[in-house]
Amino acid sequence: MDHVTFVPTVDQLNYTFGGAEPVMRITPGTALTLWTEDAFGGRITSRNNVASTALDTEDLNPQTGPFWIEGAEPGDTLAVHLVDLTPARTWGASSLIPFFGGLTSVPASPSLQEPIPERTYVYDYDAGTHTVGFTAHASEFAVRLPANPMLGTVGVASARREVRTSLVPDYFGGNMDTPEMAAGTTCFLRVNVDGALFSLGDGHYRQGEGESCGTAIEGAMHVTAIIDLIKGGGPAWPRLETDTHLMTIGSGRPLEEAWRAGQAEMIGWLGELHGLDRFDAYQLLTQISQSPIANVVDTNYSSVTKIDKRLLPSAAAHHGMHDELRRAARSLGAIHY
Amino acid sequence: MDHVTFVPTVDQLNYTFGGAEPVMRITPGTALTLWTEDAFGGRITSRNNVASTALDTEDLNPQTGPFWIEGAEPGDTLAVHLVDLTPARTWGASSLIPFFGGLTSVPASPSLQEPIPERTYVYDYDAGTHTVGFTAHASEFAVRLPANPMLGTVGVASARREVRTSLVPDYFGGNMDTPEMAAGTTCFLRVNVDGALFSLGDGHYRQGEGESCGTAIEGAMHVTAIIDLIKGGGPAWPRLETDTHLMTIGSGRPLEEAWRAGQAEMIGWLGELHGLDRFDAYQLLTQISQSPIANVVDTNYSSVTKIDKRLLPSAAAHHGMHDELRRAARSLGAIHY
Amino acid sequence: MDHVTFVPTVDQLNYTFGGAEPVMRITPGTALTLWTEDAFGGRITSRNNVASTALDTEDLNPQTGPFWIEGAEPGDTLAVHLVDLTPARTWGASSLIPFFGGLTSVPASPSLQEPIPERTYVYDYDAGTHTVGFTAHASEFAVRLPANPMLGTVGVASARREVRTSLVPDYFGGNMDTPEMAAGTTCFLRVNVDGALFSLGDGHYRQGEGESCGTAIEGAMHVTAIIDLIKGGGPAWPRLETDTHLMTIGSGRPLEEAWRAGQAEMIGWLGELHGLDRFDAYQLLTQISQSPIANVVDTNYSSVTKIDKRLLPSAAAHHGMHDELRRAARSLGAIHY
Amino acid sequence: MDHVTFVPTVDQLNYTFGGAEPVMRITPGTALTLWTEDAFGGRITSRNNVASTALDTEDLNPQTGPFWIEGAEPGDTLAVHLVDLTPARTWGASSLIPFFGGLTSVPASPSLQEPIPERTYVYDYDAGTHTVGFTAHASEFAVRLPANPMLGTVGVASARREVRTSLVPDYFGGNMDTPEMAAGTTCFLRVNVDGALFSLGDGHYRQGEGESCGTAIEGAMHVTAIIDLIKGGGPAWPRLETDTHLMTIGSGRPLEEAWRAGQAEMIGWLGELHGLDRFDAYQLLTQISQSPIANVVDTNYSSVTKIDKRLLPSAAAHHGMHDELRRAARSLGAIHY
Repeated sequence: MDHVTFVPTVDQLNYTFGGAEPVMRITPGTALTLWTEDAFGGRITSRNNVASTALDTEDLNPQTGPFWIEGAEPGDTLAVHLVDLTPARTWGASSLIPFFGGLTSVPASPSLQEPIPERTYVYDYDAGTHTVGFTAHASEFAVRLPANPMLGTVGVASARREVRTSLVPDYFGGNMDTPEMAAGTTCFLRVNVDGALFSLGDGHYRQGEGESCGTAIEGAMHVTAIIDLIKGGGPAWPRLETDTHLMTIGSGRPLEEAWRAGQAEMIGWLGELHGLDRFDAYQLLTQISQSPIANVVDTNYSSVTKIDKRLLPSAAAHHGMHDELRRAARSLGAIHY
Repeated sequence: MDHVTFVPTVDQLNYTFGGAEPVMRITPGTALTLWTEDAFGGRITSRNNVASTALDTEDLNPQTGPFWIEGAEPGDTLAVHLVDLTPARTWGASSLIPFFGGLTSVPASPSLQEPIPERTYVYDYDAGTHTVGFTAHASEFAVRLPANPMLGTVGVASARREVRTSLVPDYFGGNMDTPEMAAGTTCFLRVNVDGALFSLGDGHYRQGEGESCGTAIEGAMHVTAIIDLIKGGGPAWPRLETDTHLMTIGSGRPLEEAWRAGQAEMIGWLGELHGLDRFDAYQLLTQISQSPIANVVDTNYSSVTKIDKRLLPSAAAHHGMHDELRRAARSLGAIHY
Repeated sequence: MDHVTFVPTVDQLNYTFGGAEPVMRITPGTALTLWTEDAFGGRITSRNNVASTALDTEDLNPQTGPFWIEGAEPGDTLAVHLVDLTPARTWGASSLIPFFGGLTSVPASPSLQEPIPERTYVYDYDAGTHTVGFTAHASEFAVRLPANPMLGTVGVASARREVRTSLVPDYFGGNMDTPEMAAGTTCFLRVNVDGALFSLGDGHYRQGEGESCGTAIEGAMHVTAIIDLIKGGGPAWPRLETDTHLMTIGSGRPLEEAWRAGQAEMIGWLGELHGLDRFDAYQLLTQISQSPIANVVDTNYSSVTKIDKRLLPSAAAHHGMHDELRRAARSLGAIHY
Repeated sequence: MDHVTFVPTVDQLNYTFGGAEPVMRITPGTALTLWTEDAFGGRITSRNNVASTALDTEDLNPQTGPFWIEGAEPGDTLAVHLVDLTPARTWGASSLIPFFGGLTSVPASPSLQEPIPERTYVYDYDAGTHTVGFTAHASEFAVRLPANPMLGTVGVASARREVRTSLVPDYFGGNMDTPEMAAGTTCFLRVNVDGALFSLGDGHYRQGEGESCGTAIEGAMHVTAIIDLIKGGGPAWPRLETDTHLMTIGSGRPLEEAWRAGQAEMIGWLGELHGLDRFDAYQLLTQISQSPIANVVDTNYSSVTKIDKRLLPSAAAHHGMHDELRRAARSLGAIHY
């Protein structure tokens, strides 16, 4: 297995899905060890940096990539297996940003109210205990939380000649912001353009479901992933598989539309795996679906539909690709950065 | 502790929150052992019963109650601790109903498409293995699933002189349809009228998050609950507490509004418990919230905001009522129906 | 034709659709001359009265009625023809209310932002020029606007044993807040309970489409209306007819669902009038629909679908009831209050 | 005044806002006489052509342009004055398309229902009477309707490096699909990239508000427009001005968010024109806004906020550009194609 390391310079970062030249061409089955900048472009480093002055709004959520996958054609299935996510700094940051987030008016849905106050939180990351530290602004309250490294953004170039910012989640993946995008997960994405033009970024040291204020504990990340390709079979919406669960992710507005997209995708998947027609799959899903919200803050909202594999008979999804990539990951041995 | 048993006759069932005469007056601290009819009114008993002909649409989702709680006044906090939920029949039923459910047009949002086909699924309940059996219509697929008894509907009379059907979830509780409403849970509801007029029903032997097709495994239920009262302190939206989690439930449309309501309620609760101002609580919630959807099928949608207690310092919610009711529940000994 | 005058005392005002005893029983074909209090209960009389201190939130939007219509049964069609609306005071009022309105967060969809400032506007009404006067708070700007008297709220008791506040618009009519509800309009409503229990109120001396801040120029109103009944034929959603237009009003959330309900109702109506199947009616409606928004501020939003009668062949709606009531209105002669 | 004619070849048509090379560079103040292909790419020419087989889904809604406007820089205001729209064919077409439109489930919000039947309607256009003819499929019903030529799509390149399909309406204009985009209207758009990269297309011979089924009477159009530029002052959302009205157009999902965006934009505009602070403008807008829906069928929905100029004191918007362009249009004399 090829194993390639790529650490982008600032100039090599990209901010869109589609529209950027590939940073590298790789063959299916390649392991990548990457470094990702945080969503703030590394510009928020202390409590004194507030978003409205520190950030460059044209350069938010930088992505590492895109990678051209040899042989990938529209309709194919790209498999991205996250082998390891390790915080690349000793701190991550989160900010309350004016007119951004789930509990404030936003430009897309304006009110005449004043913005909430800006506050920045810097969480130290302790690699030994694998925890991050929260400290309040308005009181003495402090607490350490388990780190839970994940990637907010994983995606491929979009279809219909479009170029979308890395702030958007949609059918092509992108900024879905779900804690499920963690090490051990395989993400299946439909290829929309030749070469797929895959990229990832937006590391979070921890995030709750919904990403309420709009920013998780944003931090630079070391990422090791294996990228593979299945000819044909590309799903309409992103699918995830772990050792224990199957998941689909719908994105859209209002939130129920994101949920419906994810549910319909899972109904199709249950049909593929177990020969259920869509009405039987609908009934079965009704009784077994887990439905954790991913984000209610981005340009589109994202909703996860999740099934515990133990509830159903064993069935190999996407030709058993997840299990295969798990084995390949183990063959990489210990990851050091 | 008083322990009262009440099994309603068909004529004693009620279909609204508010607007019905109390079936009984009880004092705070009373344990109730109840029987609840299923949401179909017991009218669907086989695969051959389809909703459009079997159901009486005026008599859906019958509730057991309402109970007048002595001393309850508007603004108080009613605590409903679910001690035990035991299926009262050897089968439950679920139906695909024309123009009802999450993946079909509905009268409130019509399309010009034909309805999906009606199908009824009867799940046998095996008390020994505590499982229910799914059998497909269009194939030979069958699978047994763990039973997970819960109540779809728990609520009190509404405010502003309104009477609402038991099909509606809102600030007064009602038809929230979340699997979190299971044995071991304490539900805190704001009292809106004198006596609170509490009722419950809509037992589900199992339900996924979202209740996709609109009907869980609906079944008659034996319910044991302890009802208590705290003067004042009534929350704006329903709150749940278990030994391990704190939860709030918002209901509304579109789904993001339900989510926002639950999030804001939790932010207030974090403030009460930990002295956080609302902006610090917003930040902390962003990193620790779980956000399982409850239902995307009812008149209002419902969204749960959930926090693992282990992430935060110990703090007694609502004067430690949940722990007190857990102890009281244990004092009841084994429950037999 | 019977012609009855009814001016309610404060104690005779009602605040719900359903749940109130009828103030009077009338036979179909009766003309009513009524007086309606404003939505503030007459409590805002000057710029110095702000909503948060002046209003009784339990007593908002008082209605005149309900009237029991002899012979009305569920499924029938109630016809309410507005003959005349005349401002009953020399001023109306509108207020910016904390956390209420279209451009602020609201309790059903909370944010963490502060409320916008409270401001009250008192518009003098000049009967001679039939104008109302706007005066700014923060500048010297002032302008006179044509008065356009209308009723925000017209409705009947709801179905399924529910009682709804007069703040809610829904299938039963209620607080739809459309400027189309003006003199010369006939409103057709489905009867849901015996006697229909019709009421009206919420006079506006003028209102824009959408009712952006949540309060129009609210004012007490003299109302003359003729109430009639058609056995059967009750529409699913409110329908309006004027000499020039046909209209339907859908209510719900999000706003597109209100629009869909109104569109589907109009498609059905086009089928009744012109023998079009629903797909041909859908196509034709696409090219001729006007779609003025009614309100984006109430518990449900309301959307009007409107067709210019001149575009279509002549066809008598609801047995020509509108024309008949127009003739009856003329027979009343000049209205004096 | 320069007056340039441009009739694109099929190869010169473009399908995106942003991402395409300019077809021509023009100086501000240039009059353009253009030809636009219909949204179907001219592929639907008879009742027998149904969308699912006739259309190329990658080549929908072709645009004429983009035009590079000399001197246009981000933040500037592009003014597009529509001088004349004349149908370029003797027929237009509209189709009921599977899973597209306002009264069907769509891929972004799927259901499990079957699609509605496909039907195509070809409307003959009679230049003499300036009417179009509707003929039903399922009955003998036929009616002639006044033609009302308009453009569904007018826009500039988007910001943040994005490229969007011509199917999308957003802050950059695009596929707003409002009947207000007719001859005599000036459209003001914020410039987002150097040169603005303006294009237009999607002629409709007539369209109702909402564009219910998703396709208006789509037809090739002769278009004469004058393009001008104001340095700075670019509005957040598209603004329209006619001799009688001011309008803003918000786009988004759900529909109330589109409405809010348009309302907030108008509040800002009222402030510019009349010195009102935003709270006084909010109040005034409440009483005078017209709110016709534009579309409820595209990727984003669009909502128009509209004010009758006669209600307010005279005030020159955007430096009186509309009046100036009206004069310039008259100086062009009669338009012949």
